[in-house]
Amino acid sequence: MPEYTTASRFRLSGLCFLLQIITIIIFAVFVRYSPESSPGFCSQQLNCSWRNQDAGFQHPRFRDVHLQALLGFGLLVAFLSRYRPGSVAISILIMAFAIQWAVLIQGFLHFFLNGKIYVGAQSMVSADFCTAAILISTGAVLGRVNPVQMLLLTLMGVILFSLNEYILLSLMGVRDSRGSLTVHTFGAYFGLMVSRILHQPHMDKCKKQQDTGNQPDVFAVVGTIYLWIFWPSFTSATTVRENAEPWAVLNTYFSLAASTLATLVLSPVLHEEGTLRMVQIQDATLAGAAMMGMAGEMLVTPFGALIAGFLAGLIPPLGFRFLTPVLCSRLKTQDTCGVHNVHGLPGILGALLGTLLTALATADAYGGRLEFIFPLVAQGSWTATDQVLCQLCGLPITLLLATLGGSLTGEFCLR
Amino acid sequence: MPEYTTASRFRLSGLCFLLQIITIIIFAVFVRYSPESSPGFCSQQLNCSWRNQDAGFQHPRFRDVHLQALLGFGLLVAFLSRYRPGSVAISILIMAFAIQWAVLIQGFLHFFLNGKIYVGAQSMVSADFCTAAILISTGAVLGRVNPVQMLLLTLMGVILFSLNEYILLSLMGVRDSRGSLTVHTFGAYFGLMVSRILHQPHMDKCKKQQDTGNQPDVFAVVGTIYLWIFWPSFTSATTVRENAEPWAVLNTYFSLAASTLATLVLSPVLHEEGTLRMVQIQDATLAGAAMMGMAGEMLVTPFGALIAGFLAGLIPPLGFRFLTPVLCSRLKTQDTCGVHNVHGLPGILGALLGTLLTALATADAYGGRLEFIFPLVAQGSWTATDQVLCQLCGLPITLLLATLGGSLTGEFCLR
Amino acid sequence: MPEYTTASRFRLSGLCFLLQIITIIIFAVFVRYSPESSPGFCSQQLNCSWRNQDAGFQHPRFRDVHLQALLGFGLLVAFLSRYRPGSVAISILIMAFAIQWAVLIQGFLHFFLNGKIYVGAQSMVSADFCTAAILISTGAVLGRVNPVQMLLLTLMGVILFSLNEYILLSLMGVRDSRGSLTVHTFGAYFGLMVSRILHQPHMDKCKKQQDTGNQPDVFAVVGTIYLWIFWPSFTSATTVRENAEPWAVLNTYFSLAASTLATLVLSPVLHEEGTLRMVQIQDATLAGAAMMGMAGEMLVTPFGALIAGFLAGLIPPLGFRFLTPVLCSRLKTQDTCGVHNVHGLPGILGALLGTLLTALATADAYGGRLEFIFPLVAQGSWTATDQVLCQLCGLPITLLLATLGGSLTGEFCLR
Repeated sequence: MPEYTTASRFRLSGLCFLLQIITIIIFAVFVRYSPESSPGFCSQQLNCSWRNQDAGFQHPRFRDVHLQALLGFGLLVAFLSRYRPGSVAISILIMAFAIQWAVLIQGFLHFFLNGKIYVGAQSMVSADFCTAAILISTGAVLGRVNPVQMLLLTLMGVILFSLNEYILLSLMGVRDSRGSLTVHTFGAYFGLMVSRILHQPHMDKCKKQQDTGNQPDVFAVVGTIYLWIFWPSFTSATTVRENAEPWAVLNTYFSLAASTLATLVLSPVLHEEGTLRMVQIQDATLAGAAMMGMAGEMLVTPFGALIAGFLAGLIPPLGFRFLTPVLCSRLKTQDTCGVHNVHGLPGILGALLGTLLTALATADAYGGRLEFIFPLVAQGSWTATDQVLCQLCGLPITLLLATLGGSLTGEFCLR
Repeated sequence: MPEYTTASRFRLSGLCFLLQIITIIIFAVFVRYSPESSPGFCSQQLNCSWRNQDAGFQHPRFRDVHLQALLGFGLLVAFLSRYRPGSVAISILIMAFAIQWAVLIQGFLHFFLNGKIYVGAQSMVSADFCTAAILISTGAVLGRVNPVQMLLLTLMGVILFSLNEYILLSLMGVRDSRGSLTVHTFGAYFGLMVSRILHQPHMDKCKKQQDTGNQPDVFAVVGTIYLWIFWPSFTSATTVRENAEPWAVLNTYFSLAASTLATLVLSPVLHEEGTLRMVQIQDATLAGAAMMGMAGEMLVTPFGALIAGFLAGLIPPLGFRFLTPVLCSRLKTQDTCGVHNVHGLPGILGALLGTLLTALATADAYGGRLEFIFPLVAQGSWTATDQVLCQLCGLPITLLLATLGGSLTGEFCLR
Repeated sequence: MPEYTTASRFRLSGLCFLLQIITIIIFAVFVRYSPESSPGFCSQQLNCSWRNQDAGFQHPRFRDVHLQALLGFGLLVAFLSRYRPGSVAISILIMAFAIQWAVLIQGFLHFFLNGKIYVGAQSMVSADFCTAAILISTGAVLGRVNPVQMLLLTLMGVILFSLNEYILLSLMGVRDSRGSLTVHTFGAYFGLMVSRILHQPHMDKCKKQQDTGNQPDVFAVVGTIYLWIFWPSFTSATTVRENAEPWAVLNTYFSLAASTLATLVLSPVLHEEGTLRMVQIQDATLAGAAMMGMAGEMLVTPFGALIAGFLAGLIPPLGFRFLTPVLCSRLKTQDTCGVHNVHGLPGILGALLGTLLTALATADAYGGRLEFIFPLVAQGSWTATDQVLCQLCGLPITLLLATLGGSLTGEFCLR
């Protein structure tokens, strides 16, 4: 992080104060708790066909909400193992701001009724998805932007994320319940584009990454364990019904297990020194999770999850070895924490896999689960082909919004 | 921690053995599991109008009990970031003893029937509240007392905490479901008073705190994450009904988010070096949680939680800068981990906010929730004014018991 | 870990790839998700009288499955504090492979029907038990075997564990719901036997253990906290019914508290330097948990759990002081992480305590819980004496299978 002058310190303090005050005022004017005691209040009038198309039926148990905080924290700790000095505290502040801001922006899009935003458990879960995407974005620029730029990036990122999510999930009916597209792909490419715009030819060197010594990394160990323990449960909190839940959780577990083993297959071949580093396992874990973001609930056999996870686990080692140097030298895009390898590519692959599975989805294979996963198809209002086309369109739209939004944000807000 | 002589080592070992044997004997004579399969057995004969006035109705799910262990551990890890050498192990031992002892003492006060104490999930939850308060107390004297003194402080602290809690919650009917008064305020001032009594003019120097180097503190990172993840869920385990739950959890989240941002507002102004340290964010998180201890379930709008959290987040930086030096030099009270700034003042402020909200509570604003939060008012046996007076009296009683108890404990047990 | 040559690196990579491909193929041929939406599908045709004799009735909530990942991770982090360099990453890989392999092997034994293995939540829970046992085994040989040997040890260990578990729980009807025998005792003695076979006279020195410096050990702190927080809940996820649950959880808590205090009693007497180290408390925590593996659900009074935990807490300090040196010099068995003191002996003691409690179990003491804990006795198809004999036979069978299997594995696979 660049040195602070007294002026910049006071500017940061002032901006932060201003943002918090503005947020409080908007909250005071617009935000109210759902009048119903049930969390995630979703009356007839509200647009409920959102993250989960039948969100109106479900009432995520409140106990689960707190687990959502983990997604962000898992990512946070994961980044610590790549880029440490001073960035930890700023990342937590970014989270604290992103959560408030996401509740507002998403509230206007989804829970706005009679001039008020009605927040509940569902709002918090959605806000945490958004926070996770923002943390992924910051992973690309960490160490090269100052806190004020971070706050502005958060401000814009939340708006763009919510817009993209609204278009995909609510307007188009894309099924992406754990964010292969909306969280991982969007977050990675938004951050990379900002990083590209902020490129300073004389300052940024394409250093070789992953050379932070070979001490067993405390943060990577803690981060990996967090992901293993909480990511599958995070999965379970966002899937619609008890019925659809088990497969998604088990698929995520199998995917994590296979992606971890994939690292062991590639690492001795790619790296001369041969010692496996925790941070590599952590990358594989994240990639395995990103891969299951869309396809997790659609896979109907365990070996599918194993294969997908294994492929996802191959991406980060190969990416860091062959892609990151090219990205840096040719495309002038630095990627501090390697989000392209860990979130971007696995996210895209996960979206493609999800689309493929949608094409293969038949009532025979899914049985009663079809109506939970593709309700519009089950109801007969869509054909399976419609759903496939819709899933397929999600990817270019996300990439477009992420790169366009990233370049505008970088050009006009952070310069 | 002072050096050990052989004699003191054996005395510690002997005392510990004696305490454990005595505890086992008392357990053997008095303590039985609740005959009912339902946790937190609460028959007609038992005084159930305790922590939650309608505890009789509720049966906290057992799954939640294990989450309680976190409160203590969150605090524990939090302290590690301030004062490390050798104190970790002792703190865990204090916890292990405090839990057993609290089950006994609180059992005699609440679950005593026909000559037996009937323990269940509810006992464990209450014992953990007590353990948290004791850990806060030890935070004030950490590093200046030996393990034997720690054990004696625990012995007395548990008794005084249980007495204070019994008077406030059971006898007076104060509503303080997550312990702004009973845990944070009591714990902080009990510890500070003991610290005052143990003051040794020639040995204690008022060192400047918060100068533990600027490496990203592993313990502070882990501690902060624990608090964010588990504190709101801790909240949810102790609130009465599903109906009252959502608001308390969401209020706590909003409070944590705002208090974290408050640190970023103040820190660049107060500290010349300008780098934000994890331990400051951790303090803000704790203060934001202490603030919601009483008011969390009473706030009916999200922006109230944001404002309260923001104010709570301002206290620790200001306190460490201006109050702790005065406390140490003028009042001769050292405060190793800064519990006065992090628990004491936010606890008091939280209690005052809770009282204010009680005064503003109307059946209109609360709707059906009134009977869960202020059952006596809802039933008509009390007026709202009675409840306000009762809440207001809780603060001086807690302060009196904490300071009086602390000075007696320091004077007669630890000298 | 020994140095890697290029050949050995490629051999590891190849073996790993081969194992993953074979696993995927077997999964593709045999493994399917349970057709029922309910986790742990257990139809009339399947042999359901397995881990919990009435597993057929229960449907562990899926939410709990993710908690299972913790058992392994708790142990993992626990070992990190004893033996660090490079072993972390390998241990996680072992876990990732063991989980997949255990799902297969246990699937063939328990969930095989019409040529397919039907996996669900129950499979994952069982696989995690198995993984925990394997991790305990690797704790004995950590640092003296290479990754290829680790993978082979996992391969054989999973098969032997599943066999032992099948004989004990399914064929004989032993009641050991949280693995005093099947996990702790089997894991420890299997690993020790492998360690004995791999003994190299000129290389292995009986170094004094526990001298890893006196910095407050981050890994031991994190490990201990994990165990405290998640072990009791792990307990709760595997016990049968809500009714039997509370006692098992509370017994585990009381046992952990007492075993932690026992360390404080012994440590100052045994160690001259007198400073209590986190790793000792962690050992006590593990021992206290191993002790409750079989007896946790059978104890009907809290003071029983306190006494048992206190005794368990005495074993590790005494074992490390007096037994480990003898084990190493006389029996030529090195024990890198001290699994004999922490898992082996407390596991045996726990099994003996469980047998004793079975002998004392009467319908009077247990009431309605008898049918959940000893269903065969409650149904009248067995006498209480039958159950006692059965429990008693479990110990020698486990020891026999562990030592025999360990020597065969060491001799024929790892040499």
